Amino acid sequence: MGGSSKTVRKLEVATPVPADIDIANAVEPLHIADIAADLNLSPRHYDLYGKYKAKVLLSVLDEVQETQDGYYVVVGGITPTPLGEGKSTTTVGLCQALGAFLDKKVVTCLRQPSQGPTFGIKGGAAGGGYSQVIPMDEFNLHLTGDIHAITASNNLLAAAIDTRMFHESTQSDKALFNRLCPPNKEGKRTFCNIMHRRLKKLGIDKTNPDDLTPEEVTKFARLDIDPDSITWRRVMDVNDRFLRKISVGQGPDEKGMVRETGFDISVASEIMAVLALTTSLADMRERLGKMVIGNSKAGEPITADDLGLGGALTVLMKDAINPTLMQTLEGTPVLVHAGPFANIAHGNSSIVADKIALKLVGPGGFVVTEAGFGSDIGTEKFMNIKCRYSGLTPQCAIVVATVRALKMHGGGPQVVAGKPLDRAYLTENVGLVEAGCVNLARHIINTKAYGSNVVVAINMFSSDTEAELNAVKKAAMDAGAFDAVICTHHAHGGKGAVDLGIAVQKACENVTQPLRFLYPLDISIKEKIEAIAKSYGAAGVEYSEQAEKKIEMYSKQGFSNLPICMAKTQYSFSHNAAEKGAPSGFILPIRDVRGSIGAGFIYPLVGTMSTMPGLPTRPCFFDIDLDTTTGKVIGLS
Amino acid sequence: MGGSSKTVRKLEVATPVPADIDIANAVEPLHIADIAADLNLSPRHYDLYGKYKAKVLLSVLDEVQETQDGYYVVVGGITPTPLGEGKSTTTVGLCQALGAFLDKKVVTCLRQPSQGPTFGIKGGAAGGGYSQVIPMDEFNLHLTGDIHAITASNNLLAAAIDTRMFHESTQSDKALFNRLCPPNKEGKRTFCNIMHRRLKKLGIDKTNPDDLTPEEVTKFARLDIDPDSITWRRVMDVNDRFLRKISVGQGPDEKGMVRETGFDISVASEIMAVLALTTSLADMRERLGKMVIGNSKAGEPITADDLGLGGALTVLMKDAINPTLMQTLEGTPVLVHAGPFANIAHGNSSIVADKIALKLVGPGGFVVTEAGFGSDIGTEKFMNIKCRYSGLTPQCAIVVATVRALKMHGGGPQVVAGKPLDRAYLTENVGLVEAGCVNLARHIINTKAYGSNVVVAINMFSSDTEAELNAVKKAAMDAGAFDAVICTHHAHGGKGAVDLGIAVQKACENVTQPLRFLYPLDISIKEKIEAIAKSYGAAGVEYSEQAEKKIEMYSKQGFSNLPICMAKTQYSFSHNAAEKGAPSGFILPIRDVRGSIGAGFIYPLVGTMSTMPGLPTRPCFFDIDLDTTTGKVIGLS
Repeated sequence: MGGSSKTVRKLEVATPVPADIDIANAVEPLHIADIAADLNLSPRHYDLYGKYKAKVLLSVLDEVQETQDGYYVVVGGITPTPLGEGKSTTTVGLCQALGAFLDKKVVTCLRQPSQGPTFGIKGGAAGGGYSQVIPMDEFNLHLTGDIHAITASNNLLAAAIDTRMFHESTQSDKALFNRLCPPNKEGKRTFCNIMHRRLKKLGIDKTNPDDLTPEEVTKFARLDIDPDSITWRRVMDVNDRFLRKISVGQGPDEKGMVRETGFDISVASEIMAVLALTTSLADMRERLGKMVIGNSKAGEPITADDLGLGGALTVLMKDAINPTLMQTLEGTPVLVHAGPFANIAHGNSSIVADKIALKLVGPGGFVVTEAGFGSDIGTEKFMNIKCRYSGLTPQCAIVVATVRALKMHGGGPQVVAGKPLDRAYLTENVGLVEAGCVNLARHIINTKAYGSNVVVAINMFSSDTEAELNAVKKAAMDAGAFDAVICTHHAHGGKGAVDLGIAVQKACENVTQPLRFLYPLDISIKEKIEAIAKSYGAAGVEYSEQAEKKIEMYSKQGFSNLPICMAKTQYSFSHNAAEKGAPSGFILPIRDVRGSIGAGFIYPLVGTMSTMPGLPTRPCFFDIDLDTTTGKVIGLS
Repeated sequence: MGGSSKTVRKLEVATPVPADIDIANAVEPLHIADIAADLNLSPRHYDLYGKYKAKVLLSVLDEVQETQDGYYVVVGGITPTPLGEGKSTTTVGLCQALGAFLDKKVVTCLRQPSQGPTFGIKGGAAGGGYSQVIPMDEFNLHLTGDIHAITASNNLLAAAIDTRMFHESTQSDKALFNRLCPPNKEGKRTFCNIMHRRLKKLGIDKTNPDDLTPEEVTKFARLDIDPDSITWRRVMDVNDRFLRKISVGQGPDEKGMVRETGFDISVASEIMAVLALTTSLADMRERLGKMVIGNSKAGEPITADDLGLGGALTVLMKDAINPTLMQTLEGTPVLVHAGPFANIAHGNSSIVADKIALKLVGPGGFVVTEAGFGSDIGTEKFMNIKCRYSGLTPQCAIVVATVRALKMHGGGPQVVAGKPLDRAYLTENVGLVEAGCVNLARHIINTKAYGSNVVVAINMFSSDTEAELNAVKKAAMDAGAFDAVICTHHAHGGKGAVDLGIAVQKACENVTQPLRFLYPLDISIKEKIEAIAKSYGAAGVEYSEQAEKKIEMYSKQGFSNLPICMAKTQYSFSHNAAEKGAPSGFILPIRDVRGSIGAGFIYPLVGTMSTMPGLPTRPCFFDIDLDTTTGKVIGLS
C-alpha cells in the first residue's frame, strides 16, 4: 500500500486566519465514497450517512487480517490551559502533512465531541484554522448518532434498575417469578436466553422453570438491589448542572420510593468506555452484560444481564460500534469514534477505529490517534488501559506544547476561558517559558517511560517569538525528546506540519524499546493507584473511608485485577488545578473508588470531579443559527 | 406519473404467519436508492443512511411545485384495545395493495416509533405479519436520529432555563448585561442576532448596547422567570416512570435552588409537535424560537428566543426536518417522520412528509398517512390541527376496526396487554359484535363530518367468523360509510388488501364535500374545547380552578386563536378508559391547560394523563439480543 492519494485537496490559505466555520464552509468536501475508495474500502465495507460521513463496518477487519499494521502514533499534550493547546488541531494538521505533502497513507483517529461543550463554553472539537475535520457542523452535531445511542442505552438500564426495585417491592417472590417466566398457552414456562446467564451465575443448573425450588425461585427472581449501593446514573449529552444531584420517584404512582441520584454527561457513561475498549460485537455483548450497577443487599454485584438487558443494550449499540469516516480540509481520511472527557472517563478514541485504521494504511502508513488532555491523563490511560486491551504498541508519542501554556506553568497569570488573555501571554517573556518547561519535561519523561519515541509538537501562535520557541525546543531535547518541532498547521494547514511529519516518521522508524506498562495488573488496587500517583509526582496517597470501603469491596468481588482509570483534574499533575508546573511531594487524595466492570477498569475519584458541566451566562448557543435559505450552520465555533 | 413500479417484490406467504422479525429478516430489502429512483428522486434529493434508509431533503419540494398532488388518505380507527387494532399494519397493507397489485404510485406516511414501547410492553410499530416496513429493526431503533435530535434540543432548552435562573439569582443587572454583551478587544459591545428578537419584543429600538438606559438593561438582561410558571420539562425516549416527578438542583453548587419538575417521553416534547406541523426550515426556525417555556414574574411569556436558543435548536433539528424513506415488504416506498403518542401529543406524521409524498405520487397516485388511535384523537387532530396548518384536504378517511375491539365495546371482558385473551374473543359471538358497533358508528359519523368519504377497513383475525364480519360491515354501511371491506393483509400482505385498495380509490374519486373543521379558530378556547367535547358525546365540560386560570392566562397573552389538542385517554370517547362503546351525557373534566405556542396549539389535559410510560416486570427487552455472528437483531417484536 502507501502513497499517492487521489483525494488530496490543495488549500488556499488566507491571513489572518478566518473563523473556523468560515474556513470549513468555504471548502466543498469530497464525497465520502471517494475518501473510502482511496483507502481501498469497497461500498460493502461502509454505510453512507449523507454525502460526507460513512460508518466503516467492523466486518472489514475480517478481510484485512493478513495486512500488516501501519505505524501507530498517539498525540498527548502538556498540562493544558482551559483554552486547550490545539491537540486536535495538531493531530489533524500532522495527518494533513503526512497525507497531502509527504505522500503517506494516513488515517486520523479522533473522538466524537460531546454536544455539551459545543453549545456551552468550549465550542466544537473539529480542530481549528486550516487543520479541521469537515463538515465541521456534522462533526460537532449528532455525527452518526453514537452518543445518542449511548444515552439511550445508558438510560434504559437506569430505568430498568428503578423499575425492578419498584416491582420487587410490591410483589411476592412467586408473583415475580410468574411474571418473569409466564406460562404460555399450553401452560408451559420457559427461561428466555438471557435468564440462563443469571441461572449460571447463581449456580442453578436447571433449564425448566418448574424444576426450581422455592429458594431458587427467590434467588433467581429477586435481585434485592441495595439502593444505597447503586453506582449507575442517568446521562444526557447536555451541560445541565441542575441534574447533578436530583431526587427521582416523587410521583404518587411510585409510592414513596424516592431516591437520590443524578445525571452525568453522556460521554462519561460506562457504555462510552465499553465502546472505546471493545474489540468486536461479541466482546461488546459480553462487556455490556457484565456492567455492574450496584450490589444486592447481600453484597453481590448486580449486572445488566441480571436485569435482562445485556442483549437489548447491544442491539441499541450495534451501529455505534462502527467508526465514522470523515475527511480533513486537505482530503485525508479521519475515523471518528468514542468520546472525550478524559478527566472523568477513559477519553480515548476507540480500539476498533485504531485497529481498522492500522490495517487500512498498511505498512509504512500512519495512524495518528488522540488521547485526551496531558500525558498524565490521556497518554497514561492510552498506554495502560487501551493498549493493554488492544495489544497494540505505538511507535511514537507526541506531546503538544504551546508557549502560552508553558508561560502559565512558569508562573503567568490565570487563564480563564471566555476572558481576554493577560498581556503576559502576548508579549515575549523567555523567562516565564523556561520556568514552565518543567511541566513539559515531566510529560516527556513520563511518556518516554512507556518505550515510545517522544516528539514534541510546538503549536505556534502568532504572538510567539523565536527566542521563546527556541527555549521550548531546547527544554524538550534536554528532557529526552526524540525531536521537537515548531508547527504552523493552524495558519497553513498540512504544509505547516511537514517538519513534524518528517520527525514522526523518523521516530517511528527508530524505535528501540518495547511497550512497558506503568504497573502490572496482578498487584493490588492500592498498589496500582500508588504507581500512577507516583508518576504524577505525589509523595503518597490518602484514601477516604469511603474509598477504603470500596477498594475492599471490589477486591472481595474479584475485580482487583483490572487496570485503573484515574478521574483527576486535567489542569495539574496533582489533584489541585491551581498547582501548575511540575508539583511534587503532595499527597493525592482518593475521595471514592468506582468500577466500570463491563468496560474493564476501576476508577478512583481524585478530589471532587464534576461529571456534569454547566452552562455559562452567555453560552455559545447565542451565536449559533441556521441560514434557512442556504441550510448552512452559522456561528458555530 | 402513476403506474408500473420497478421495485415491487413478490411475497411468498407462509401459514401460520411467522413472527414479525422472522418475516422481516427473511426478505432482503432493496437498496433504498432503487426505491428512491422509482419515485423519480435523483441522488441530490436525498441522503443515504446506510443501505435501507435515506433522508429525503426538503429541497425536493422546490422542484416539484408544479406537479399536482395525488389523493390523500388518512387512516384512523375505532376506540382500540390496549393490543392495538392493526392501524399501522392496515396502513402498510393498503399501500402494498395499491402499489404492488393495483399498479398505483403510492407512498405510506408513518410516524417514527418511540423506543420506550419498543423495549417496554408494546414492541415495535413497523406493522405486522406480511404488512411491515423493513428493515423492521432499523425502523424501530434510532432510525435516522430524529427523536434523538428532539431529546437533545428539548433538554438543551431545559438546561438553559434552570441555568439562566441560577445566573440571574447571583448577578446584578449590570453584571448580567456585561456577560451577555461582553466588550471585544476594542472595548466595543454588540448584540448578537438573536438578541435583536428580544429587543424587538421589548419594544427597544436600539442597536448599540451602550445606548440602553439602565431600565432597558434590566428589561433586556433579566428574564425574571417565575419558577412556578415553567411548563417546559425534560424528555427522554425511555419508559422511565421514576422521572415523572423529580427534584433538580440538589447539588451543593446549585446553592439550594431546588425545583420540582419531571421528564416526559421524548415524543411528547413540543419540539416533536413543531417537527410534525412545520412547513419549511424558515417556519421551523420561527416556531422553535416562539416556544413558550413559562412566564416572567410579571406574567409575560418567556420564549426560547428570549433565552438565546431559537437558532441553536434549529441547528440541532436541521436534519430531523427531512423525512426518512424506507420500504414495505413488497417494495413500496414509505416516508417515516414525526412521532406517536397521540393521546398526550399531536401524534400525526409530519406535514412535510405528506406534502413531499403528495407531489411524488402525483395525480392519480395515493398518499396514505396514519393518525394515532381512534378518530376522536388521531383523525380529529389530523383534521383540525394538521390540515388547518398544511392546507391539505384528504379525500378518504379510513376507520380500522376489529371484531375483537368491537366485542370489547359490546361488553366483552377486559383486554390487558401481556395477558392471554378471554375466550369471548376467540369464539363466535355476533351479539357482542353488534352491541359494540355503536363505537364504530360514532367514529364513522364523526369522521364523515369533516367531508371525507369514510371507508371501514375490517382487519380480520383468524378467529373471526363470517357472521361477525358481516355484522360489522352492515353496521358500517348503516352509519354512512362509503364502503366497508374485510382485509387479510396481516396474513397475505398487499394481496389481502386489494379490495380495500379498490374501495379507497373509488372513495377518492367520488368526493362531493369540501373539508369542514369541527370549530373555527376565532372562538374562545372554552368554546373550542366544548365543540370537541361534544363530538366525544359529552354533555358538558368541567374546568378545574387551575384550568380556568390557565385559559385566562393564555387568552390574555394572545394565544386564544390557536387550535386545540386534547390530551385524553385513547381507550374511550370519554375521559374514563373503562367507558367503552359510545358513552354520552358525561361531563368532561379539564384538569389543566397547557400551551405548545411554538407548535401552534393549546392542549387541555383531560383527567390525568401520564406523559411518561413505565416498564412492566418483564419488559420486551428480555427477549431482544443481537446474533453477534450475523449481526442480526433477534427477539424484537
